[in-house]
Amino acid sequence: MTEAFDAVDVIVAKRDGHRLTDPQIDWVIDAYTRGVVADEQMSALAMAILLNGMDRAEIARWTAAMIASGERMDFSGLSRPTSDKHSTGGVGDKITLPLAPLVAVFGVAVPQLSGRGLGHTGGTLDKLESIPGWRAALSNDEMMRQLEDVGAVICAAGSGLAPADRKLYSLRDVTGTVEAIPLIASSIMSKKIAEGTGSLVLDVKVGSGAFMKDADRAGELARTMVELGTDAGVRTVALLTDMSTPLGLTAGNALEVRESVEVLAGGGPADVVELTVALAREMLDAAGRPDADPEAALADGRAMDVWRRMIAAQGGDPDATLPAARESEQVLAERDGVLTTLDAYAVGVAAWRLGAGRARKEDPVQAGAGVEIHARPGGTVRAGQPLLTLHTDTPERFGRAREALAGGVVVDPDGVAGARTSLVLDRVAAG
Amino acid sequence: MTEAFDAVDVIVAKRDGHRLTDPQIDWVIDAYTRGVVADEQMSALAMAILLNGMDRAEIARWTAAMIASGERMDFSGLSRPTSDKHSTGGVGDKITLPLAPLVAVFGVAVPQLSGRGLGHTGGTLDKLESIPGWRAALSNDEMMRQLEDVGAVICAAGSGLAPADRKLYSLRDVTGTVEAIPLIASSIMSKKIAEGTGSLVLDVKVGSGAFMKDADRAGELARTMVELGTDAGVRTVALLTDMSTPLGLTAGNALEVRESVEVLAGGGPADVVELTVALAREMLDAAGRPDADPEAALADGRAMDVWRRMIAAQGGDPDATLPAARESEQVLAERDGVLTTLDAYAVGVAAWRLGAGRARKEDPVQAGAGVEIHARPGGTVRAGQPLLTLHTDTPERFGRAREALAGGVVVDPDGVAGARTSLVLDRVAAG
Repeated sequence: MTEAFDAVDVIVAKRDGHRLTDPQIDWVIDAYTRGVVADEQMSALAMAILLNGMDRAEIARWTAAMIASGERMDFSGLSRPTSDKHSTGGVGDKITLPLAPLVAVFGVAVPQLSGRGLGHTGGTLDKLESIPGWRAALSNDEMMRQLEDVGAVICAAGSGLAPADRKLYSLRDVTGTVEAIPLIASSIMSKKIAEGTGSLVLDVKVGSGAFMKDADRAGELARTMVELGTDAGVRTVALLTDMSTPLGLTAGNALEVRESVEVLAGGGPADVVELTVALAREMLDAAGRPDADPEAALADGRAMDVWRRMIAAQGGDPDATLPAARESEQVLAERDGVLTTLDAYAVGVAAWRLGAGRARKEDPVQAGAGVEIHARPGGTVRAGQPLLTLHTDTPERFGRAREALAGGVVVDPDGVAGARTSLVLDRVAAG
Repeated sequence: MTEAFDAVDVIVAKRDGHRLTDPQIDWVIDAYTRGVVADEQMSALAMAILLNGMDRAEIARWTAAMIASGERMDFSGLSRPTSDKHSTGGVGDKITLPLAPLVAVFGVAVPQLSGRGLGHTGGTLDKLESIPGWRAALSNDEMMRQLEDVGAVICAAGSGLAPADRKLYSLRDVTGTVEAIPLIASSIMSKKIAEGTGSLVLDVKVGSGAFMKDADRAGELARTMVELGTDAGVRTVALLTDMSTPLGLTAGNALEVRESVEVLAGGGPADVVELTVALAREMLDAAGRPDADPEAALADGRAMDVWRRMIAAQGGDPDATLPAARESEQVLAERDGVLTTLDAYAVGVAAWRLGAGRARKEDPVQAGAGVEIHARPGGTVRAGQPLLTLHTDTPERFGRAREALAGGVVVDPDGVAGARTSLVLDRVAAG
């Protein structure tokens, strides 16, 4: 078969700072999926894209080409409007768990196709799998039925959506080309657009525990994704939210489910509630429910009802006792003062090392492992007071978890006490 | 085995504009040679080097690491000083053929480890193989004996020198990363330094028929290579020479041997003689023979004597009739005027298409194929006068060869006649 383009010509065009044409983009993604463009060629192109950028139209076409590499889902047969949320990932980010049932309360279908954790950020499916009986894998039919009956589904994304993205993501991971904003944005959005949601709210994390450490780049990523969604006909809004310290008071699988259930019961940590409600308002607004009152639905048990039905529909027992780790240890304040730093990345790595996360896709995770947080940044603490509790089934892991925390937990005798300011740093909508 | 570095960290360092450290460079070249750094990682690194550059010390270390990947040769046992020449490649560039014996006349050993042609530039070994009986492959012992006895050797480079370079070059060729000056310079110089020559003269071509189309980049490449040679203890000088029009009046294998023999007989085209003598003076000067008179050695037959002995020592018959192509066609001037353009690239591609060159390493070449030139840029021509003669064994190739010449041969009725200015545009020596 004669190929329409030569891979070297496409690489050289981007290397030399030119726009890629639509046919070049369509061809290179398709030929990479077919194996005609080799990994070493795609990685050189990815590096050229990282260093020389792509404009809005190029990114949109790149995304469309990735969507075209696989199947698309179709929610148009549902009686409810659909809305979806995507977070770029953080430490203690269990928001999907209370959020999906909360939004479903108001007659919106929430299909949350989720993944597993890798590195210092946890995965939504890993968290839910700590609930006895719960299963992540649903057929398309099961998912549609549950969306119609319950309104909320959190399940594993099928492998049919944007297969080019999966192949490209694995390549970027080993070639130093993960950090290209056009490629991050198109990777996320190709799956979300292929999934067929009517509206989408993005939670773009900023700070040490996030993929984006600084607000400028996070803002650029947010704008790029909002543009991509908008250009593809999906109502898309992004919130930039703080990830300098963990979200809530837990990082770990069963620990985070427990905290999520507290929120669904009308309690839970203020920051988790704040962000759950803020994202719910955006999703409800985007789905045509601007008058819905998510705070009321948390307070009066309607969100909890949907949660219980959602868990049960996927084989889980909402009343089961959650697994606990076999061993625990406390991290104590070494002096009187103010906890000035509780670094999200440090806590995330500690939870990972305790067994809550994995270094490689094949690794198992411990349901009960993780970190419980007893003090928040800005709070006054006394020497000897517990700041954290570390949980694991494998106590030989405590040492390396404590190493991860070194420098990330700072008590300053001269620090100034004070509550955290708003989690939501900015909002990006189609302009 | 535990690796000293992670490939992604090395890629990210260069991607983000940092210097690579000596241990990083040593590791990445060695690990790539061992297959621990994958092709897709090295191509991403090559793209980052192309776009972000390397400084003088990085390039020197990169070159040293490539040399360390293989064996080194040692000419120190010879009674003669050694000097070598490298050309970056051009159309009609047969200079090595008269130059090596000419320099050897003065008691200098000239080990010319050469390659085959690819694309529009010919290869020295392909040219010599048109001489019946001549063989390119010599053992190390044969080469040393010939250097001691005859003084000049032109033979195939062994595969033991800088194997990392061979692997990297193949990769760069398919990933759009050939054009990185640090990588070009280290590729050429790693082999020349590993070869162990005492001095080196570089012929860096500039113009349409050269790899470097513009003088600035050619100058940068020349400076980089002179610095690399100097830092490695090799006396290195570079000449920048014009490659906007072919060198001499022939492009093709046997055609160029014939022209080289004319030069060795004291005749030949003025530009070929000029460049041969200029490079010979540089090599003789670098080898400690500043008073040698190369023009006299061409005029009085001493260079021809060495040529005949050199060819015979490698099995060739210096008196054999050279092969001629079976078919030929002329390209005529279409009008009266001045030949303002005879483009090197156009003529090179025409010769290649006639069968003198190859598109892939495995392809054979035709000994007799090529282009003879009957008029030079600046010369006055009459309508119907032959400008070129095309030669091939396979006449179906004439059509595509003529297509390659379109736009590359221009007769302007209002053109200004005049002789070509000097071939040598600049000289770069250690500063």
